[in-house]
Amino acid sequence: MEREEFLKVYRHSLSHILCKAMRELFGEEVQYAIGPQIDDGFYYDFKLPRTITNEDFKSIENKMREILKRKEDWTRKEVTREEALEIFKDQKYKLELIQDLPEGELITTYNTGDDFIDLCTGPHVENSQDLLNTAFQIKSTSGSYWRGDEKNDQLQRVYVYAFPDKQQLKDHLALVKEAMERDHKKLGPQLGLFMFHETAPGMPYWLPRGWKTFNALLDFWRGIHEEHGYMEISAPVINNQKIWATSGHWGHYKENMFIIPGEKEDESDYYAAKPMNCPNAIMVYKNELRSYRDLPFRISQVDVIHRKEKSGELNGLFRVQEFHQDDAHILVTEDQIASEIADIMSIAGEIYGTFGLTYVAELSTRPDDFMGDIEVWNKAEAELKEILDNQYGEGNYEINEGDGAFYGPKIDLKMRDALGREWQMGTIQLDFQLPLNFDMKYAAQDGSVKQPVMIHRAIFGSLERYIGILIENYKGAFPFWLSPYQVGVVPIKPEHNEYAKKVVSALKEAGVRVEVDYSEKNMNGKIKTFRSFKNPYTVVVGDKEAETETLSLTIRGQKQQLHDVPLQKFVEMCKTMNREHSKELITEA
Amino acid sequence: MEREEFLKVYRHSLSHILCKAMRELFGEEVQYAIGPQIDDGFYYDFKLPRTITNEDFKSIENKMREILKRKEDWTRKEVTREEALEIFKDQKYKLELIQDLPEGELITTYNTGDDFIDLCTGPHVENSQDLLNTAFQIKSTSGSYWRGDEKNDQLQRVYVYAFPDKQQLKDHLALVKEAMERDHKKLGPQLGLFMFHETAPGMPYWLPRGWKTFNALLDFWRGIHEEHGYMEISAPVINNQKIWATSGHWGHYKENMFIIPGEKEDESDYYAAKPMNCPNAIMVYKNELRSYRDLPFRISQVDVIHRKEKSGELNGLFRVQEFHQDDAHILVTEDQIASEIADIMSIAGEIYGTFGLTYVAELSTRPDDFMGDIEVWNKAEAELKEILDNQYGEGNYEINEGDGAFYGPKIDLKMRDALGREWQMGTIQLDFQLPLNFDMKYAAQDGSVKQPVMIHRAIFGSLERYIGILIENYKGAFPFWLSPYQVGVVPIKPEHNEYAKKVVSALKEAGVRVEVDYSEKNMNGKIKTFRSFKNPYTVVVGDKEAETETLSLTIRGQKQQLHDVPLQKFVEMCKTMNREHSKELITEA
Repeated sequence: MEREEFLKVYRHSLSHILCKAMRELFGEEVQYAIGPQIDDGFYYDFKLPRTITNEDFKSIENKMREILKRKEDWTRKEVTREEALEIFKDQKYKLELIQDLPEGELITTYNTGDDFIDLCTGPHVENSQDLLNTAFQIKSTSGSYWRGDEKNDQLQRVYVYAFPDKQQLKDHLALVKEAMERDHKKLGPQLGLFMFHETAPGMPYWLPRGWKTFNALLDFWRGIHEEHGYMEISAPVINNQKIWATSGHWGHYKENMFIIPGEKEDESDYYAAKPMNCPNAIMVYKNELRSYRDLPFRISQVDVIHRKEKSGELNGLFRVQEFHQDDAHILVTEDQIASEIADIMSIAGEIYGTFGLTYVAELSTRPDDFMGDIEVWNKAEAELKEILDNQYGEGNYEINEGDGAFYGPKIDLKMRDALGREWQMGTIQLDFQLPLNFDMKYAAQDGSVKQPVMIHRAIFGSLERYIGILIENYKGAFPFWLSPYQVGVVPIKPEHNEYAKKVVSALKEAGVRVEVDYSEKNMNGKIKTFRSFKNPYTVVVGDKEAETETLSLTIRGQKQQLHDVPLQKFVEMCKTMNREHSKELITEA
Repeated sequence: MEREEFLKVYRHSLSHILCKAMRELFGEEVQYAIGPQIDDGFYYDFKLPRTITNEDFKSIENKMREILKRKEDWTRKEVTREEALEIFKDQKYKLELIQDLPEGELITTYNTGDDFIDLCTGPHVENSQDLLNTAFQIKSTSGSYWRGDEKNDQLQRVYVYAFPDKQQLKDHLALVKEAMERDHKKLGPQLGLFMFHETAPGMPYWLPRGWKTFNALLDFWRGIHEEHGYMEISAPVINNQKIWATSGHWGHYKENMFIIPGEKEDESDYYAAKPMNCPNAIMVYKNELRSYRDLPFRISQVDVIHRKEKSGELNGLFRVQEFHQDDAHILVTEDQIASEIADIMSIAGEIYGTFGLTYVAELSTRPDDFMGDIEVWNKAEAELKEILDNQYGEGNYEINEGDGAFYGPKIDLKMRDALGREWQMGTIQLDFQLPLNFDMKYAAQDGSVKQPVMIHRAIFGSLERYIGILIENYKGAFPFWLSPYQVGVVPIKPEHNEYAKKVVSALKEAGVRVEVDYSEKNMNGKIKTFRSFKNPYTVVVGDKEAETETLSLTIRGQKQQLHDVPLQKFVEMCKTMNREHSKELITEA
């Protein structure tokens, strides 16, 4: 059995054991709904006579183990609809599930011992003793709704970690602990990077330190895009309803938009905060007559955008209602699609590579309800495949056949972080539709008037989300060039303040982000504070340093200090790390 | 007679002459409303039998001159209310004006010759011949409403330039022409700086070039504020209604806010795009417990803000609905008010000085309905006066007694541009109220808990508006450090592209904003394009330059070219101008 299949059978079987345990602990009135496997185990939804708490976890786990030790046989049985309705007559959720099954077909049930039966297609283990070596642990409980609909009964969901053996569970728990320590929602406020407040749910407040990192990331992004011929604009945050009607957002995305009614009842007098940048980029394109000489026409922008989310779905910087997309819209001729996509892939490589993050690509191709010319689609898809073949080797990337949007094929870029977690990052989306909706044109070389193809693309996806990922990936210890403050300066005594000022100004002159503590606190207290913010370097200056124009350096992550570093040498080290966007700190002078 | 008084009498008298002329031209049915003097002349509002156009201007002016030549006497007469009602029985607007005058008092009228009378307090000239040397010219007409209320009659307003003599009118017309040529609404789109579109009225689109200037200005501003200990944040654009209720905006500023209704009818579920930054700055202050050691606590931010304006009041970048305020909020102890205000004044001096713009200050003091402790007000006002006395000399600045907001005194900073026009720029506003509304605290040195004083302040006021002013002040020719592109590079032939690349990369490395034209256009065409965008330098490279690693420079505003400028030398020139924010271009190598 493959690991995946094995996990599925074991986890699914354990979910029946949990169900049986709950019935034995809480009685016949327990209503059991569904219990699928998930990434790290499974969950099961119950209607219980009382709310269960962390205190109950141990006794539930013990009961499960006790059941396993009974070494009961599992029996698969096929029954008619009528028999199933009779078997589950006291289980309202199972009855509903049975009603939904196709008429006339047999229904599968599984018995675990004589006294527990569940509705299930299987497969399962043959005897509970097969599960004796598995390792499981209740993770948490949460409220849920029958069929995920808040109009239905509220249930209690029990999440359980489940792995084939103790070592794997142990490894996983270590990973979970590590992830918790890296949790950006905890580290962000702790490091003074960002905060949230109920006055603006899901809309981050960038605190002074976080805003420095944000801007350092933005500068890096700008530099690369400038090199690749992008022109950055900034466009209105609020637009009239008419533009959203033309773009199709009013028809298909209205629920996610923050809408501002106008003076009149008429919807065309309404405004909305933009959820996407495309229409405004189009207004800029259309501001002048364009010719083939202007193409590829590359407009980038990082304006703030707003998208309504259900409050339960907000999640730190990962799922927000207000964010900055590192957006770009490129207008090309059909002949320029291939070279432009190749250029975007090269930008993506440059950017992700700087962070040492590996990424993979997925191609989504023409759906049945595609619009436009099939020849254009075929050519574009062939070109995208060729680019991906060259980059990853033929067949070494996923193709989601028929999964593209109706208006064009797309490439998704997914990244893996330090914990091996996968993140959807950039998207490169071809669009044959919007240029049509907005009647976009260019004067072709042959004198005719043609319609350009539009490419929407983002590399970070959202700067907020990307910074959230980076915080977790680096555990808050950003590379030098991204650190909010790169250097903290500690004068040992007030008489060293003057030399400290000289150090600060030499560093600032070189474009280094530096902070200094002139207070009367003792040296160790100052060093401790700067280290708590994960500043890459803490510079200590006392008599000797002032006299010789040197520095003593405390380096993040290093026990040893560096002494007698000439000031100018340190300035050069910092300049190098900024220029090269180094992943590692220089630890030798 | 002082010039001001003289102008008032002459202009006001001329407005009667206009009125008399209109009656002679358009007959007895002409209804004349009011005709006050304004900055450059006067206007008069009429109800006329037909719409007048530019074609009518000449004959109206001629009729006015003809009347002056009659050398008629002006007679002042005091009449009773009843007499006045009789005299103006056919003039509905005059009748309304008479109704509004206090009962029982005599009413003043002025006759010009025998056949024209107007309701007026005067003073006026004694005979029309006194006006013979004045110079006037009809400027324009526009629609207006009786008493400025669109529910009233629509009238035609005739604007007239009027000056004591021909030379002064000529000078003024030259100034008007100059102002038109400098009009940022014309220059902005022409130089590719910004555009507007009906999809977002009053919300600027920053085009690629303008966005570079915007960011250069922002960087400059950031550098100075960093030096002065400000911490920049970025906060949500949209906030829940509750915070606006607490701040008082919901009660007093709602009409100017873009409001987003919530799911529920309840207003507390509403959201609004922020019209001001204060409440979010307060949330950041309140995010941690603060002590006297944290004060002055200086939070700066340049987030986009939104304020609704009537569409008729929108005016390019000067009056917009979406803009970036260079905002800061400072929390201080009462003892820190003086030193903090002095520091803000020094920032203002540094910033305005960089542009070579002079500015004056106005102090607005305690109104009758002030809130808080009168001792605190007295001390604060005395301190503000002392700062202004020191800066301008006692009495050399305006004091608007009683004109402060109820929550604190303020200083307004006003600037004069190249045409001598005055602009309201920065504001420094003390606020004893918001810290109370939001229950802000700090732990004082003596262990007690106290309330800080808040200072709101902006130097530019709005980055958009300031850039608009700069465009007009510089006629689009920004100083080097603010120019969208600072250098344009022109390779004479394709074989010079390689050296051109070297030049571009040396300049970019030095932080210079550079653009290059590798196209096959001829040299003069390329130079012309770069000059049309007012790039400070156009660098021409051909055989000789490539061989000797030199440049030929075309300098904005200069006829002569500079030849044989070593590349490295030019790079250093550019670096110096950027570092020093020079007002003038370096014209010698």
